[in-house]
Amino acid sequence: MKRMFISICLILTIVAQSDTEMVRKVRDEVMMNGKAYDQLWYLTQKIGSRLSGSPQAAAAVEWARQEMERMGFDKVWLQETKVPHWVRGAAEEVKLVGSKTEGDMEFKSLALGGSVATPPEGITAEVVQVMSLDEVDKLGKSKIEGKIVFYNRPFDQTLVDMGEAYGKAVDQRGGGPSKAAQYGAVGVIIRSMASVTDDFPHTGGLRYADGIKKIPAAAISTIGADHLTRIMAKEKNVRIHMKINSQWLPDEVSYNVIGEITGSDMADEIITIGGHLDSWDVGQGAHDDGSGVVQSIEVLRALKAIGYKPKRTLRAVAFMNEENGLRGGTTYAAEAKRKGEKHIAGIESDAGGFTPRGFDVNSTKEVIEKMQPWLQHFDTGTIGFIEAGGGGADIGPLNRNLGTPSIELHPDRNRYFDYHHTNNDTFDKVNKRELHLGAASMAGLVYLIDKYGL
Amino acid sequence: MKRMFISICLILTIVAQSDTEMVRKVRDEVMMNGKAYDQLWYLTQKIGSRLSGSPQAAAAVEWARQEMERMGFDKVWLQETKVPHWVRGAAEEVKLVGSKTEGDMEFKSLALGGSVATPPEGITAEVVQVMSLDEVDKLGKSKIEGKIVFYNRPFDQTLVDMGEAYGKAVDQRGGGPSKAAQYGAVGVIIRSMASVTDDFPHTGGLRYADGIKKIPAAAISTIGADHLTRIMAKEKNVRIHMKINSQWLPDEVSYNVIGEITGSDMADEIITIGGHLDSWDVGQGAHDDGSGVVQSIEVLRALKAIGYKPKRTLRAVAFMNEENGLRGGTTYAAEAKRKGEKHIAGIESDAGGFTPRGFDVNSTKEVIEKMQPWLQHFDTGTIGFIEAGGGGADIGPLNRNLGTPSIELHPDRNRYFDYHHTNNDTFDKVNKRELHLGAASMAGLVYLIDKYGL
Repeated sequence: MKRMFISICLILTIVAQSDTEMVRKVRDEVMMNGKAYDQLWYLTQKIGSRLSGSPQAAAAVEWARQEMERMGFDKVWLQETKVPHWVRGAAEEVKLVGSKTEGDMEFKSLALGGSVATPPEGITAEVVQVMSLDEVDKLGKSKIEGKIVFYNRPFDQTLVDMGEAYGKAVDQRGGGPSKAAQYGAVGVIIRSMASVTDDFPHTGGLRYADGIKKIPAAAISTIGADHLTRIMAKEKNVRIHMKINSQWLPDEVSYNVIGEITGSDMADEIITIGGHLDSWDVGQGAHDDGSGVVQSIEVLRALKAIGYKPKRTLRAVAFMNEENGLRGGTTYAAEAKRKGEKHIAGIESDAGGFTPRGFDVNSTKEVIEKMQPWLQHFDTGTIGFIEAGGGGADIGPLNRNLGTPSIELHPDRNRYFDYHHTNNDTFDKVNKRELHLGAASMAGLVYLIDKYGL
Repeated sequence: MKRMFISICLILTIVAQSDTEMVRKVRDEVMMNGKAYDQLWYLTQKIGSRLSGSPQAAAAVEWARQEMERMGFDKVWLQETKVPHWVRGAAEEVKLVGSKTEGDMEFKSLALGGSVATPPEGITAEVVQVMSLDEVDKLGKSKIEGKIVFYNRPFDQTLVDMGEAYGKAVDQRGGGPSKAAQYGAVGVIIRSMASVTDDFPHTGGLRYADGIKKIPAAAISTIGADHLTRIMAKEKNVRIHMKINSQWLPDEVSYNVIGEITGSDMADEIITIGGHLDSWDVGQGAHDDGSGVVQSIEVLRALKAIGYKPKRTLRAVAFMNEENGLRGGTTYAAEAKRKGEKHIAGIESDAGGFTPRGFDVNSTKEVIEKMQPWLQHFDTGTIGFIEAGGGGADIGPLNRNLGTPSIELHPDRNRYFDYHHTNNDTFDKVNKRELHLGAASMAGLVYLIDKYGL
């Protein structure tokens, strides 16, 4: 009798735990016993950068599978997806040649991801500076033909959110090469998509437009871009030599890695939590997006560790090929649709493992209004807002094709675009507490969505 | 007539600028033209660490004076204050001796600020580990006499605010030495006051109690502390050798550096904005508290640059001797009282140049309630809360002796206690945008206080 009384008391205690207490409880588990930081160390230091199609990307798939197995999730599987395979090649260069004031001078540079190669000997041409794609249209064929176009519009530093600044500058990288080619340019260099002034060039994907000649394109550092501007203010007919040895290889087979804790009484409703496993082929893909992958695994680990039994099914997904194709995210949504799965929420972390500030939600007004009172469960210094916005790339296809509300962890972004797509995106730039507070915030949100739906 | 019309329109435009627009305008000025980061580079790289009484502290005073003069403030002056002068001395050590498993092994260590020296040959004694001052009381003379006491209570990692974690651990550093001496201990080592597990020891002030023998005290790194714990779990009678060659010299004359923009019609009401110019004698005092000094100067520079004419008097103060005496802050308040000055607000930045999150206010409920609606003027990603709390050390005496509301910038503190009081508190740990967003937030607040009072 006494034992039964104690059992009832224990059950009542668990039932009586408020949402705030549960959000706090899973946070404490992450902050005291979290594995995300150690996992990130392995992924970044023992595997390193891992562009789609590379041997390192295959190693990362196997690593993620083993980690999820080791966590004892209910199911772990690989979801096949074909991925593009682009290889940078050695000895890239962007060089000032025959300058009156500087002679020959090399700029720190990286070919943009997906760029075609130059001829083996490279190309040399006069450089034309522009601040926008529109300016290329205005200059037209007479000023552009045979030239190398230099896109140099910087981030707007008056914006608080560097994600927004990136969004307002990145058309130069994505669409700049084809826009220049349209008027007969022979090559493109861009000012790196960076929030900082330093000497690290930032790579990133370009998108060649159909029916327009593909011309080679590279990024130079922001310091390099400022220096080139000064040279062009002093000299006429400044000439640049550029060399890129990239190669497009046939598509490779790769995988999304999926780990699941199956729900109890509403198992058919799925909550996906993910980041992307691939990275660019420079640095270590620590903030972009090793962080998001280990945080997503940590969410499931921590909920399991505190003995939480979700009603709904929780999936941690390490998506493949966000950087240059989005094939993983596309395949995941297509398979979900084909199987008639019910996806009630997608949560993504792909803006760095920095201190969390809020959640951006891409869904209806009703969904956002349902979520906003949940703010009260998150401590000052963790989640400060739940607002309309963003939503995340990999869970974008779920959102667009199945109508799934997509939610993106919004960390502080002041430093993210200092490191993004550079050799400087390394493990030492990630702070353990910040990474774990992000994972803890996501875990709290998953608990609330599991309890109340969306 | 036309010219007059245009002038009137211009005036009306200025008058019509909403508070949100003004807060944004001064923020844009800081983000586009801010000088704080460049100033911090000079202070940290060209002057370096600057403990009170040191030649570097004198250099920092002269540098701050020149910078404020160069900014064209209405008045710039030095306010004399006597400061203590403690010198670390060379060849400190904390060493494991004669361990069965490790032999002799040196720990990375730093004498606590203000510690007395050991005899020149050092001291060697058995070490006793405790987790609190209370535990020393419990162990008593029989277990403590003749020993070296090792305080090893870590930060509580479940707390979001590492400032709070520091507050809950720092009694070991401040009061631990005298507590141990009370029972006849011969020396003290403490686990560094740190949020991170690494091999950097953290110094910081101790406070010897009156009438109790002063015994030497040093901090070892958190990794070192964990290792010592493991050794003590395996071996009995673990012995430590420690050597400290510090010296107390006579007090020196030093200064607070004050720059003022005199108010227009309410010039007798003063708003003080400050940080502290001195630092510990290790690292470069970048986050603690070079950042607060350059932010405070930037607040006045930016408001002046946008043509803002304050009604009230604004003062940027680079306080001297926060770290080991608070003489500057004490002198500033005493002088204010002696002159019958009316100080309506003190604002301090002394928790690192990290991304801003909120303001902590030490004042009445009425004052806090007056300020809270101002939150609407600060963008998401800058100031997310205005709450009761903290207030800052240097403006503490103004608060206690004149009743002045004291307000502290609350940056994200996840990284602050990784670097605090270590050789690792260097310029490269400061992010320009984060530093400037903090200054911009303070400038917005100063504008609001100037307009509405407190």
